[in-house]
Amino acid sequence: MIKYPSGQPFVDTKKRAISSNSPKRIVSSGNRGMNLEDDINASNEWYKEHGICLITKRPTPINVVKVDYSRGAIITNAYFEKQSTTDYNGVYRGKYIDFEAKNTKSKTSFPLSNISSHQIEHLKNVLKHDGIAFFIVEFQTLSKVFLLDAKFVIDYFEHNPRKSIPLETFEKEGIIIKQGYSPRLFYIDAVIEKYFKL
Amino acid sequence: MIKYPSGQPFVDTKKRAISSNSPKRIVSSGNRGMNLEDDINASNEWYKEHGICLITKRPTPINVVKVDYSRGAIITNAYFEKQSTTDYNGVYRGKYIDFEAKNTKSKTSFPLSNISSHQIEHLKNVLKHDGIAFFIVEFQTLSKVFLLDAKFVIDYFEHNPRKSIPLETFEKEGIIIKQGYSPRLFYIDAVIEKYFKL
Repeated sequence: MIKYPSGQPFVDTKKRAISSNSPKRIVSSGNRGMNLEDDINASNEWYKEHGICLITKRPTPINVVKVDYSRGAIITNAYFEKQSTTDYNGVYRGKYIDFEAKNTKSKTSFPLSNISSHQIEHLKNVLKHDGIAFFIVEFQTLSKVFLLDAKFVIDYFEHNPRKSIPLETFEKEGIIIKQGYSPRLFYIDAVIEKYFKL
Repeated sequence: MIKYPSGQPFVDTKKRAISSNSPKRIVSSGNRGMNLEDDINASNEWYKEHGICLITKRPTPINVVKVDYSRGAIITNAYFEKQSTTDYNGVYRGKYIDFEAKNTKSKTSFPLSNISSHQIEHLKNVLKHDGIAFFIVEFQTLSKVFLLDAKFVIDYFEHNPRKSIPLETFEKEGIIIKQGYSPRLFYIDAVIEKYFKL
């Protein structure tokens, strides 16, 4: 468990207005008004500011077709490209960290159709080079967020006839990610538990 | 020195047509018709395919203002954002690697104006978390490419009154990156020499 700076819960006034006298964050996606990606980005910002780790989101790749330089480099024709890697990577204690974040509205299982074969290939490569690789999966309706090791997911993806990973498997094989104000997702605690405990 | 698969020089037919009986790559930017970024991207692809390391380029961040969904998600208004990090990161032997690539036409020194303070901040953060951080700098007109440790560059940037790093400093403090067909830049050899030799 990381020793977070004192004075928790910490209110990140720069990022989102949270009434500082709210007794507790109401942990439901509806109330949060934020999605998993926002939560991870805000957590990463917090982790960076507090010197805990450095994880960044890869920008969405965009193929730029036309730029209007007469108006100061305005892109007037472009399209989204598929991310061939995962969304997040970075460093914790010198080690390479790489993960993909996904959410589901299902209350019972996480559909593997959410994961692209490109991402599986990328994560296999990360593992080959001894990087730390995992998924962060949010069961939105249950307000539960898990870390699940990439190796486990890849094996499941490639060898299990099921098209989804049941919630019970997350409960058993994954690590629950604590939620709070700041960071919103204490996911590095889960990383430590999974990968840094001797 | 990495043991590269036998049969060098290797011809990467997928990426660029190179006559397979060319005795030697003519190492000048003009003849190559490629820039430093292309060279690094092609080298990364080669390193990935040969299982040596996994380094990817972060996509250029673009702020999307307007999307025309009637035509299948065509971006009709957007603009380039400044990269707040470096261009490349990834993993080698479990360790986090992060670097920025720059080139100069100068024959005598590398102007520090090429480096943004955001990049310096980012690289300081990488070093704080024990990541491996460096610059790859190409002196285009000389056809010389160097690896220079980020800590050295940051100290220079912050404490040296000079506005540029002389070529002699690269020769003395940096590591020359060997160039070839495939990979075009043997930069992992320089990484090993600098960071993995005991």
